[in-house]
Amino acid sequence: MAKKGLSILGSTGSIGRQTLEVAGTYPDRYRVVALAAGRNLDVLVQQVRRFCPEMVGVADEATRQEFRSRLPGWSGPILAGEEGLAEAATWPTADLVVTAVVGVVGLKPTLLALQRGKGVALANKETLVAGGDLVMKEVQTRGRQLLPVDSEHSAVFQCLQGQSQRDLARIILTASGGPFHGQESRDLAGVTAEGALAHPNWRMGPKITVDSATLMNKGLEVIEAHHLFGVDYQDIDVVVHRQSIVHSLVEFRDGSVLAQLGWPDMKLPIRYALSYPERLPGDNPSLDLVRVGQLTFETPDRNTFPALALAYRAGQTGGTMPAVLNAANEVAVGFFLAGRLRFLQIADITRRVMDQHIPLTPRTLEDILKVDTWAREEATRLVGVNP
Amino acid sequence: MAKKGLSILGSTGSIGRQTLEVAGTYPDRYRVVALAAGRNLDVLVQQVRRFCPEMVGVADEATRQEFRSRLPGWSGPILAGEEGLAEAATWPTADLVVTAVVGVVGLKPTLLALQRGKGVALANKETLVAGGDLVMKEVQTRGRQLLPVDSEHSAVFQCLQGQSQRDLARIILTASGGPFHGQESRDLAGVTAEGALAHPNWRMGPKITVDSATLMNKGLEVIEAHHLFGVDYQDIDVVVHRQSIVHSLVEFRDGSVLAQLGWPDMKLPIRYALSYPERLPGDNPSLDLVRVGQLTFETPDRNTFPALALAYRAGQTGGTMPAVLNAANEVAVGFFLAGRLRFLQIADITRRVMDQHIPLTPRTLEDILKVDTWAREEATRLVGVNP
Repeated sequence: MAKKGLSILGSTGSIGRQTLEVAGTYPDRYRVVALAAGRNLDVLVQQVRRFCPEMVGVADEATRQEFRSRLPGWSGPILAGEEGLAEAATWPTADLVVTAVVGVVGLKPTLLALQRGKGVALANKETLVAGGDLVMKEVQTRGRQLLPVDSEHSAVFQCLQGQSQRDLARIILTASGGPFHGQESRDLAGVTAEGALAHPNWRMGPKITVDSATLMNKGLEVIEAHHLFGVDYQDIDVVVHRQSIVHSLVEFRDGSVLAQLGWPDMKLPIRYALSYPERLPGDNPSLDLVRVGQLTFETPDRNTFPALALAYRAGQTGGTMPAVLNAANEVAVGFFLAGRLRFLQIADITRRVMDQHIPLTPRTLEDILKVDTWAREEATRLVGVNP
Repeated sequence: MAKKGLSILGSTGSIGRQTLEVAGTYPDRYRVVALAAGRNLDVLVQQVRRFCPEMVGVADEATRQEFRSRLPGWSGPILAGEEGLAEAATWPTADLVVTAVVGVVGLKPTLLALQRGKGVALANKETLVAGGDLVMKEVQTRGRQLLPVDSEHSAVFQCLQGQSQRDLARIILTASGGPFHGQESRDLAGVTAEGALAHPNWRMGPKITVDSATLMNKGLEVIEAHHLFGVDYQDIDVVVHRQSIVHSLVEFRDGSVLAQLGWPDMKLPIRYALSYPERLPGDNPSLDLVRVGQLTFETPDRNTFPALALAYRAGQTGGTMPAVLNAANEVAVGFFLAGRLRFLQIADITRRVMDQHIPLTPRTLEDILKVDTWAREEATRLVGVNP
C-alpha cells in the first residue's frame, strides 16, 4: 500500500503536534511531505529532523534565516509567510493537507489544496466560518473530501456514516461550558487571561481556549456545522455537557439519535481524519462508562455568554457577516490575552463591529479578506477608544 | 413504488400490535399480507378487519373454528398452529416477515422465511438464542437481511451502518436494570409476579418483563448480539443504564464509541426495521437531552442477578447450551408467573438444567427442538420435585 503523503499546516501548534504523533505511530501508512509552521523553531527543527519532509514553510523571512542557520544541512525548499503555506498546501506529493493553523490565514491554503484536488483534514475553524460558501463550493465541484478534525464535527461526521442526508433532522453540538460555566455576567467582570485559559477538559491553544470560555468557540462550530453538513441554523442545537465524553449527536427524522463518545483526546478525531474511511487502533484506553458514571446535559446560558447568540445571528445573516464575527472576535481575544480588554468586552466589541457591517455575498477569497481586514481595523479602533 | 408486503407472526402481541400501528401510518408503503396470532381473537379480528390480510394463522383448531364463526365473511386461508406460522412466514406476497411471537416457536418460521428468500425483522429473542448458528448460516447463504427489532440490537445495527466489521471492537448493551435494581438476593426472596411485571421504562409482554427483572433478558440479548454481529462474548459488555435513553453502544478499534439514543419507544426500532435502509418520520417527540438531564451507567450486579452470568456461560459453551438455557428459563418463568416458583428459583432451575446437559452441535432444527423439549421436561421435573 502506498503511503499517504501528509502536508501539515501549523505543525508546531497543538493539533499539528498531535497529528505528527499519530503519523509517527504509523510510519508504514503515512509519510510527512510538507510542514508549515510559524516561529516556533525549537519544535519545528525537531519535527524536520524526525519526519524529514520535502519542504518547509515558516512565518517570515527572519524565521527562514534562523531555520537555515539552525539546520545548515537542510537542502529542500523553505518558504516564508503565505507563500510557505500555499506551497505546503499544494505540494505535489501531498495526498492529504491538514489545515491546523489558527485564524483566517487557514482559508487560502485550504482553498488551494482543494483546487489542486487534495483531501483536506480541517482543524481550522475560521476557514469555514469566514469562507464556508466558497470552500464548500470547491468541495462539491472537486468531489474531494473535507474531513473535520474538530472533536464535535468529527463526531457528527462519524454519526452520519452510512446514513442518508435526507434523513438528517438535527445536529446537537455538545459544549463543555468552559471554565466559567454556571457563573453570571457580574462574576466575569474581573476575569483574567489566566482564568480563561484554565479549560476543564481539553488542552488547546490560547485563542481557542478563550473562545471556549466565551462560548464563541461553540458559536463558530455552529457555523462550521452548517456548512459541513448542509443543515439550517434552526436545526443546529447546542447543549452543555460538562464531561466532554459525548462529542456531539445527530437526530434523524425518525426520532433516532446517534452520538459519538470517547475520552476527550484530540488524537482520536485526528487519527480518524487521517485514516478515513478506515479506523486505526490507537493507544487510547477503552471508554469506561461506569467509571464516567454520569453524563449530564444542560441548556447553555445565552445571557452570560452572548457570543453564542452572536454566532447564530452572523450565520443566519450569512454572506460576509460570519467573517466579520470571526475577525472582530479574533482581534478582541488578542487584546484580552494581552490584558488590554476585559473578558465581557470580547463579545461586546464583536457585536459592535457586526452592527456596523452591511453584509455582502463574497464571490472571491479577496472579498472575504477585504472584509476581514476591515473588521480587524474596526475592532482595533473600538478597543482603542474603549481601552 | 411497490408496497412492501408484511407478514406479521404474533400480530396480537405487544410488538405485533405496534408493528401494525406503524404499518397503518404508512398505507402507501406497506401492505399487510399475512397475520398469525395465538388465541386473542378480540384483537385479531379487529386487525383482520382493518388490514385485510390475504391469510391468517391462529394457535389451534378451536381458535380457527371460533375465528370462522366470528368472521363468517372471511374467504382467505386460515390455518392453525405451526402450519399457520409456516404459511404466514412463506406467504408468496410477503416481502418482509416480522417474527414477533414469543418463545422458541419463532425459530422454525424464521428459518422458513429466510429459506424462501424473504427479509426478516426479528423481535423474537429465542430464534437466535436457540438457533443462532443455523439462522445466521441461512442469512449468509441467502444474503437476506435479518433486521433486529429489539431496541438494543437495533441500536447496535444503527451504529454499525457505514462502518466496517473489521473495525468493530466491542458491543456495549445497556440494561435498564429492571424493577429490582439496587436490591440484593435477600430482598428478592418474596417477589411476586406482580412485582416483577412492574418494569420502570418499557411496557412489554409478561415473559420478557420477568426476564428483564432477572436480567435473563439481557443475557439472551448478549447471545443474540454474538450471532447478529459476529462478536466474541468477551467483547460484549452490559452496563446498567436506568434511564433507557441510550439503547446500546458500539466501540471501534480506534477507541471511538457510537451510541444510539431515543425516548424508550419500541415503535422507533420497529419503524426502522420496516423502512431500512430508509428512515421514516415518526410521531415521536424529539429527544430532549436537557429534559433527560443525566444519563447514568453502572455495573450490573451479577451476584443478585445470576441469570446474566448463566447466559454468558451458555453462549460461551455454545452448541445446544443456549437452547437449554432458553427453554429451562421459559418454563421456570411460566411457573413463576403461575405462582408455582419463587423469583430466585428461576435462575436456579435454569442452572440446574444446564448442569445436566451435555451440549452438542445442532445440525438441524430438529436437533434444537429435541434439546428444547428435553430441557422443558427437565425444568418441569425439577420444579415438580422442588415446588
